[in-house]
Amino acid sequence: MTKNFKGIAASNGVAIAKAYLLVDPELSFEKTVIKDVTAEQARVDDALKASSKDVEIIKTKAEQNLGADEAQVFEAHLMILSDPEMSGAFKQKIADEKVNAEQAVKEVTDTYVSMFEAMTDNAYMQERAADIRDVTKRVMSHLLNVSLPNPALINEPVILVSKDLTPSDTAQLDRQFVKGILTDMGGRTAHASIMARTLEIPAVVGTDVATKEVASGVTVIVDGLTGDVIVDPSAETLAIYEQKATDYLAQRAEWALLKDQQSVSADGKHFTVGANIGAPKDMAAVLNNGAEGVGLYRTEFLYMESDHLPTEDEQFEAYKSVVEQMDGKPVTVRTMDIGGDKHLDYWKLPEEENPFLGYRAIRISLDQTDIFRTQLRALIRASAFGDLWIMFPMIATLAEFRDAKKIYLDERAKLEAAGVVMGDIKLGIMIEIPAAAVLADKFAKEVDFFSIGTNDLIAYTMAADRGNDRVAYLYQPYNPSILRLINNVIKAAHDEGKFVAMCGEMAGDPIAVPLLVGMGLDEFSMSAPSILQTRSLMKKLNTADMKLLAEKALDAETNDEVIALVEATVK
Amino acid sequence: MTKNFKGIAASNGVAIAKAYLLVDPELSFEKTVIKDVTAEQARVDDALKASSKDVEIIKTKAEQNLGADEAQVFEAHLMILSDPEMSGAFKQKIADEKVNAEQAVKEVTDTYVSMFEAMTDNAYMQERAADIRDVTKRVMSHLLNVSLPNPALINEPVILVSKDLTPSDTAQLDRQFVKGILTDMGGRTAHASIMARTLEIPAVVGTDVATKEVASGVTVIVDGLTGDVIVDPSAETLAIYEQKATDYLAQRAEWALLKDQQSVSADGKHFTVGANIGAPKDMAAVLNNGAEGVGLYRTEFLYMESDHLPTEDEQFEAYKSVVEQMDGKPVTVRTMDIGGDKHLDYWKLPEEENPFLGYRAIRISLDQTDIFRTQLRALIRASAFGDLWIMFPMIATLAEFRDAKKIYLDERAKLEAAGVVMGDIKLGIMIEIPAAAVLADKFAKEVDFFSIGTNDLIAYTMAADRGNDRVAYLYQPYNPSILRLINNVIKAAHDEGKFVAMCGEMAGDPIAVPLLVGMGLDEFSMSAPSILQTRSLMKKLNTADMKLLAEKALDAETNDEVIALVEATVK
Repeated sequence: MTKNFKGIAASNGVAIAKAYLLVDPELSFEKTVIKDVTAEQARVDDALKASSKDVEIIKTKAEQNLGADEAQVFEAHLMILSDPEMSGAFKQKIADEKVNAEQAVKEVTDTYVSMFEAMTDNAYMQERAADIRDVTKRVMSHLLNVSLPNPALINEPVILVSKDLTPSDTAQLDRQFVKGILTDMGGRTAHASIMARTLEIPAVVGTDVATKEVASGVTVIVDGLTGDVIVDPSAETLAIYEQKATDYLAQRAEWALLKDQQSVSADGKHFTVGANIGAPKDMAAVLNNGAEGVGLYRTEFLYMESDHLPTEDEQFEAYKSVVEQMDGKPVTVRTMDIGGDKHLDYWKLPEEENPFLGYRAIRISLDQTDIFRTQLRALIRASAFGDLWIMFPMIATLAEFRDAKKIYLDERAKLEAAGVVMGDIKLGIMIEIPAAAVLADKFAKEVDFFSIGTNDLIAYTMAADRGNDRVAYLYQPYNPSILRLINNVIKAAHDEGKFVAMCGEMAGDPIAVPLLVGMGLDEFSMSAPSILQTRSLMKKLNTADMKLLAEKALDAETNDEVIALVEATVK
Repeated sequence: MTKNFKGIAASNGVAIAKAYLLVDPELSFEKTVIKDVTAEQARVDDALKASSKDVEIIKTKAEQNLGADEAQVFEAHLMILSDPEMSGAFKQKIADEKVNAEQAVKEVTDTYVSMFEAMTDNAYMQERAADIRDVTKRVMSHLLNVSLPNPALINEPVILVSKDLTPSDTAQLDRQFVKGILTDMGGRTAHASIMARTLEIPAVVGTDVATKEVASGVTVIVDGLTGDVIVDPSAETLAIYEQKATDYLAQRAEWALLKDQQSVSADGKHFTVGANIGAPKDMAAVLNNGAEGVGLYRTEFLYMESDHLPTEDEQFEAYKSVVEQMDGKPVTVRTMDIGGDKHLDYWKLPEEENPFLGYRAIRISLDQTDIFRTQLRALIRASAFGDLWIMFPMIATLAEFRDAKKIYLDERAKLEAAGVVMGDIKLGIMIEIPAAAVLADKFAKEVDFFSIGTNDLIAYTMAADRGNDRVAYLYQPYNPSILRLINNVIKAAHDEGKFVAMCGEMAGDPIAVPLLVGMGLDEFSMSAPSILQTRSLMKKLNTADMKLLAEKALDAETNDEVIALVEATVK
């Protein structure tokens, strides 16, 4: 029977396929006394063998999709599965205590896990504990004869249905087979949503009910344009949505024609449309979508995906790779934004009551200057290979910018004295703290450029954590208070002849783009898949009309009123 | 030998007295095998008896200082100490296991504590666990013959030295003997600092080293005007500070003459100087310091100091009491601001990653409207007894204010229909979220008044949790970005002919007051002991000069620059 529900439209497109539920199955069991020790030991052998076979397949898939480095974890899993000490311990326990295989596996692996986990200072051992837990789940599923979902094993087109997607889940997704994503939790700016947009997979998130309402194998329509979900559709509905999917693909094809064009408004004003990236590996999508620059290179992923503080040379290679690939187009690199919700295993930061209002980003860089200096040296060296700009995140006061600039100039002078080749570098700040937005006129006199980070700016201005569902209604990008701050920043920059970009989610949002065009924003930087759609939208906009629209929006009272204004003006 | 160090000046005045260290002593011991069971059991009896004697004294003190209600907890302690089941268990264990009294007490009480603590849903049992832990500490101190510090037992003039002061520590302080407060941790806006100002005890906080550098019994000078601390001063230094203490008291006496005067500037402009309170019991200080109104009545303490949601009648009595005592002067009541760092035992709110950016204040009231309606009814009924104003905390959007107002009007209409007598009530909002400060012109059309809450406004605008030491340098009340937001709010209110107050720490800050006078703020509401000093300062200020000063400050670049501007203008 057909069922409908709605979630948050998180990644454009329409997907139709069978549901694949990525939900951990029930793995509970009763402890029993067994008689036939040999038979029970044979069950362990079989489960270990079947598990190894699974992991071999997963490993091969991971190598294909993600590369040899990312697949290494599965090599570790295979070693555990073939470890004679481990399997010996299972069998010993069965023989000694006459317990069933499930109980033996549980007790032995629990001991290992707690032993490794007790070594809290040792990140390596902590990871081993996680490996054993992962492997045990798989062995147990074979013992209990329940199937364990594994996204890497998918070999037909599916809609992936889950409570939430972790970064490691998404890393295993195969674009070829995963046609759509449907989750219970999350919002438009959650990790799963950002990944879905990067991989160009239609997605609806935050449905609350997806894993309850959808059974494995049933046909599901996921409309990532509206947030609608239809389970087990009628033939008629199916035909309508197949048409919608085709139309959307046709529109994408039309957008693709814009790839090598400039971004210009209907009346011929040029805007820069750039891409946000997290690592050199994101560059393929950037180039495929015709970005006119990298407006935000989030360097914290260099730190998060490493098991040590990245060295100056490791950083240099990453920055150089991106700058070279952009071939003379500007690349704006943000110095590390660790803290808040971004943690490093090898570098413990203090526990905080309110990490988003705490020790993070430039606050850490100015406090632990050795780490900051290393990054700045790598950036200055990479600037020789293209057009590199540097910006500091979470700047709240002019004193912080001045301190950061002083350290930059100091490192630059040292490298110059050592004869290192370097390019001109523009030095700017993220505007993501209300204090900086309010005082933008003063900052504009001292920086080369601004980049408005709307995700955090909205969170602080509305005093609402965007990761907290209970206050999600306050994440209002079009609230006139937000628009006024953005307008103030753009005006302040232009009064001093400075360049102003935006690199938050808002820069690629179809409601926001007309307003930002009207305010005269110079650069729009977004996830690569939004670029061509935005370029297409800009072609329809007349800057004089958008200026009038922006003026009305700045004088509006609520977020809803602004949406209505834009929708009435831009058809 | 004399030692000097510096902390944060947190409560005005100069105190000179012997140090009293409020630091928990080492209570560790070895488990030993004993031979003489009877002697060991006698040790338990002696320790219980000595502990009861302590608690009797503490209880009497608490009754004198705080009233019978607050002293009840010590009645519970006495019952535990005289519980035959408990002492029987101690003696049994000594007899059965031949262990020393310390070990017996520890094992028995540990069992009780974990039993009670396991009942996590039962607030009463949780409290009993805390009581047993408290009592055990005292019994153990007698067994080990170490003295347990207890502020209620102090009977000579002292400077209280501690790592930090908890609310329950401060509740036991006897103003007669505690001449000064000196702590390792905390800032000007920490609980201990606010309490010190309320009790008019000179205090220096955030010294980092006080409990290390100061030995019990040594003479200490605490200069709450500058933050200077001098340990074991020379006779010469002592004389200088005794003079300073005398001078300060003379100044206070001069201020006291202003008690029944109005607050006017040198050129005759009148300002309202009001008081912030948390409960009817704070009214003595309000009346003694000649407040012209209550600018902030924080009703969350009604909820926090209760073991159930306060009923409509309980609330009505509290509000009525304050309104009546103010005898026609305005009383601005803030609806409950629960959440953030304010929790209730009997009403569990969700755990949040960033509670300051989460579910709190009006966000809860609009979500759980029954609780909100109860409070509004109590307030409307109390309005018959004086001049009562209502304001909503943490308003971010106009939609929230409109929703809250609708509920208020609904309850008002119902009470009117029932023939309940009520007064006119002014309806306003706290401006403590940047979004509301930026959009103040729109809010001003719909509210009767604003009250600027600077503590939170600064935290959100600077994106810095004021309780987090690592980012404490960003708590910058005079940062031009903050001043601009405040100025925008004042201007927006006056353009619509509305009244604008401030009830954050800043309203009583001698650097901020000249700027706020210059901007034309209508009401300054502060902790009662700051009122007369502020009234005295206002008498010296000329509004035209302060207007010029404020204009310069609004065009300044940094917090430090503004401090220098004010200090150069106001001598």
